[in-house]
Amino acid sequence: MAALKVLISFAGLKNKLALSMKSTYSVAELYEKKPIGEFVTLSGWVRTFRSNRFISLNDGSTVSNFQCVLDYEKFDDTLLKKINTGTCLTLKGKIAESPGKGQPIEMLVESVEILGESDPEKYPLQPKKHSLEFLREIAHLRPRTSTFGAVFRVRHHLAYAIHDFFNRNGFFYIHSPIITASDAEGAGELFNVSTLDKKNIPLTEGGEVDFSKDFFGKEANLTVSGQLEAELLAMGLGKVYTFGPTFRAENSNTTRHLAEFWMIEPEMAFYQLSDNMELAEEFLKYIISYALEKASEDLRFLDQRLADEEKSKPTDQRSMPLLEKLHFVLENPFARITYTDAIDILLNSSYHRKKKFQFPVEWGIDLQSEHERYLVEKHFKTPVIITDYPAAIKAFYMRLNEDEKTVRAMDILVPGIGEIVGGSQREERYDVLLQKIKQFGISEHSLWWYLDTRKFGTCPHSGFGLGFERLVQFVTGMSNIRDVIPFPRTPGNCEF
Amino acid sequence: MAALKVLISFAGLKNKLALSMKSTYSVAELYEKKPIGEFVTLSGWVRTFRSNRFISLNDGSTVSNFQCVLDYEKFDDTLLKKINTGTCLTLKGKIAESPGKGQPIEMLVESVEILGESDPEKYPLQPKKHSLEFLREIAHLRPRTSTFGAVFRVRHHLAYAIHDFFNRNGFFYIHSPIITASDAEGAGELFNVSTLDKKNIPLTEGGEVDFSKDFFGKEANLTVSGQLEAELLAMGLGKVYTFGPTFRAENSNTTRHLAEFWMIEPEMAFYQLSDNMELAEEFLKYIISYALEKASEDLRFLDQRLADEEKSKPTDQRSMPLLEKLHFVLENPFARITYTDAIDILLNSSYHRKKKFQFPVEWGIDLQSEHERYLVEKHFKTPVIITDYPAAIKAFYMRLNEDEKTVRAMDILVPGIGEIVGGSQREERYDVLLQKIKQFGISEHSLWWYLDTRKFGTCPHSGFGLGFERLVQFVTGMSNIRDVIPFPRTPGNCEF
Repeated sequence: MAALKVLISFAGLKNKLALSMKSTYSVAELYEKKPIGEFVTLSGWVRTFRSNRFISLNDGSTVSNFQCVLDYEKFDDTLLKKINTGTCLTLKGKIAESPGKGQPIEMLVESVEILGESDPEKYPLQPKKHSLEFLREIAHLRPRTSTFGAVFRVRHHLAYAIHDFFNRNGFFYIHSPIITASDAEGAGELFNVSTLDKKNIPLTEGGEVDFSKDFFGKEANLTVSGQLEAELLAMGLGKVYTFGPTFRAENSNTTRHLAEFWMIEPEMAFYQLSDNMELAEEFLKYIISYALEKASEDLRFLDQRLADEEKSKPTDQRSMPLLEKLHFVLENPFARITYTDAIDILLNSSYHRKKKFQFPVEWGIDLQSEHERYLVEKHFKTPVIITDYPAAIKAFYMRLNEDEKTVRAMDILVPGIGEIVGGSQREERYDVLLQKIKQFGISEHSLWWYLDTRKFGTCPHSGFGLGFERLVQFVTGMSNIRDVIPFPRTPGNCEF
Repeated sequence: MAALKVLISFAGLKNKLALSMKSTYSVAELYEKKPIGEFVTLSGWVRTFRSNRFISLNDGSTVSNFQCVLDYEKFDDTLLKKINTGTCLTLKGKIAESPGKGQPIEMLVESVEILGESDPEKYPLQPKKHSLEFLREIAHLRPRTSTFGAVFRVRHHLAYAIHDFFNRNGFFYIHSPIITASDAEGAGELFNVSTLDKKNIPLTEGGEVDFSKDFFGKEANLTVSGQLEAELLAMGLGKVYTFGPTFRAENSNTTRHLAEFWMIEPEMAFYQLSDNMELAEEFLKYIISYALEKASEDLRFLDQRLADEEKSKPTDQRSMPLLEKLHFVLENPFARITYTDAIDILLNSSYHRKKKFQFPVEWGIDLQSEHERYLVEKHFKTPVIITDYPAAIKAFYMRLNEDEKTVRAMDILVPGIGEIVGGSQREERYDVLLQKIKQFGISEHSLWWYLDTRKFGTCPHSGFGLGFERLVQFVTGMSNIRDVIPFPRTPGNCEF
């Protein structure tokens, strides 16, 4: 035990030493604390090296680089030649006010340690403008660029704000299963999960695949939604939410679809549709205002990026500047309207009269993107919550209204993105739910556990789903969904 | 637009009304605010109904039930008959100090609304002790029990504490991919993800499965770890962490293994192994102390539950009481010891001399559970960080020490669970890494992107992985890992 005690007291000593000698900073910490006159250590990657004198260093803690000034006469030429874009360095020196315009403080470098070189002939990220398409090909390196650094930091702040919002409001975070034998929603094409040898698939006597030989003893797929499982937990814990990956095996190559994406699905016992709408609006406004506060610098950078991108478009096709749009959403109540009224607005619009809609408008249709955009961007000019959709175009679990034609659904539409939230009050009446399940051709047997919640102590409850990447797109202004997740999965793409 | 304005001002009005009339409470809020004399609304599920008079109501907001007192003469008999265990109710009444011993306050019920009945002949959760095995069969209902309510609330608080810790410390949360074409770690058996028709698998001319016809155009599997991708992001953002599901298709039916489980994997640029150890210890202590503060009532309940369970064991096989164990971990520094020294301790132990170890002890072995338990529970009596393992028994990406025999690995062992954290400093030297990749028989080509990070601006960096369910087991004292995740996936099990 003597040896142990030495180890422990040594560790304690080391901790104390490390604290008293703390001189290692991140760029974000340097800008925050401005330790002028202090001798500090800073590590990061070279963005540019100008005039053999000015190193612009970035360490990922913020979008801003830190200017480090070298007296090149003090350093060896072979060392200076190794300082290129992408080189990883540890610099030591004194922090001083910067005489230059671009930054308040800078480092007067006294020592340079090269941690990792970066051959300028080979390193793909040179200090010039790269297209987003090119950067997608090198998704392993793009977090080193200003744009993707900003996007992924904003993504972090949004994710944190989501947990923060729910935690403050008495919700419990639950993990719904990723691999599941249930395809209750019938929400489209599924990814099968299996350990069967594909060169030797076992068949039953009837010639079907014998999934009893598979890992789970039955056919299993990747989840399309955690909602049904979240409902089970809401019936015990009251208010819960999921935040996990969901999957669609759809062959969609668009700027809005991923095969693997993250969803947030809150589910609340005792919530009516109106409570659900209020929660969703409050939730969206909370996380956007959180991002505006905590990621202000990144959002200013992304605002400018979008403005530059928009310059190439004709004036009437440009979207609202990013920060203006975010403040606009925060400061205005969301419009609330029934599906039936929305159809009336569309039918009475000049767009409809002038036949500008490509798809027909009539009660019963699934609103097309052009209809949603008209309502949000032309008519209301604010986010819109549309409620009480026709039962036939919505999922089986949505609560049937007294009219027996519509259900207590709600979709929230925002400018540029369209639907960002989809939710409903759930059908809590056993008989009505059972009838809907049969009508929708779903096997009653496969949902015995879901039906059980309506059999034992059922209650009115509601919930909604938010596609996380759609949210990140909305807040960062990135037009392609593949640019807001580190490693996008789409048909034909699962690199890295 | 007139209609919209009416809608908006109506919604505003409704919000104001709702706030001024706020009288709906959760049980947790009632106990916190104790609104004695106030007329309130409370919804929840009946746990017990005694003497036609005392309803014990639970709404999931806390492990405690709320006593609601009925004057049965004021209520109809048919209504009273519907109040059974599991029935969902909305009760209205006045809050008063409770003359009873079990609770500080209670509700004097004035109205009862039955939201959902619960047939006592059919509802499986009756007020008696159910075995954990039985409850696992009805995982859709078990969140309604005190034990699982407590476990899942603690799980929530632990998850929140993890995000909170990293956010406070300048880490960015990243989502590493779930579906991946890389099996770099060779970490064992994989779940294949596919949309190929299993009854009609396309083959190449050589007779192999033609994955070019599959959704991603190549063979794709569920991830076993997000570490390699986290490293890519750490090289841009500095400090990052993952918190996502990972998968093992191992046919293990134990109390410690799941096929689907959640992992937390921080990865930090510029961290040496010693920084990594300090972070991991600080991290574990932070989240445990957070849980002790925020989930104190649930943990007291689970402490008692474990104590009851332990009573059936012989005294010398009982584990440390739960709360005592958690405080013990908080208050003691973790022992730090090299693998080589750990082997010496084992060789010099009375256990070894008396041949009490089932597995042989010698330098080079993978420590068995019995060895780890001896070190933690018998020798050090505190969590232990073992470092510098033999290179041959650890992954290819761990940094080789100067001795060229050991690597900068670290495992943290805790009482009862064994390994809870596994981490290392990563091999940042391109040549050494390439050689290790070849030694381990991994295709260099499949890791081109990982090698790129060592080619361009490499730097010392470190990280670790924490199995979330192991942590929840440790903090809740639940002995079977299937009881700390809502819907466990194991061989033959993927219900719900």
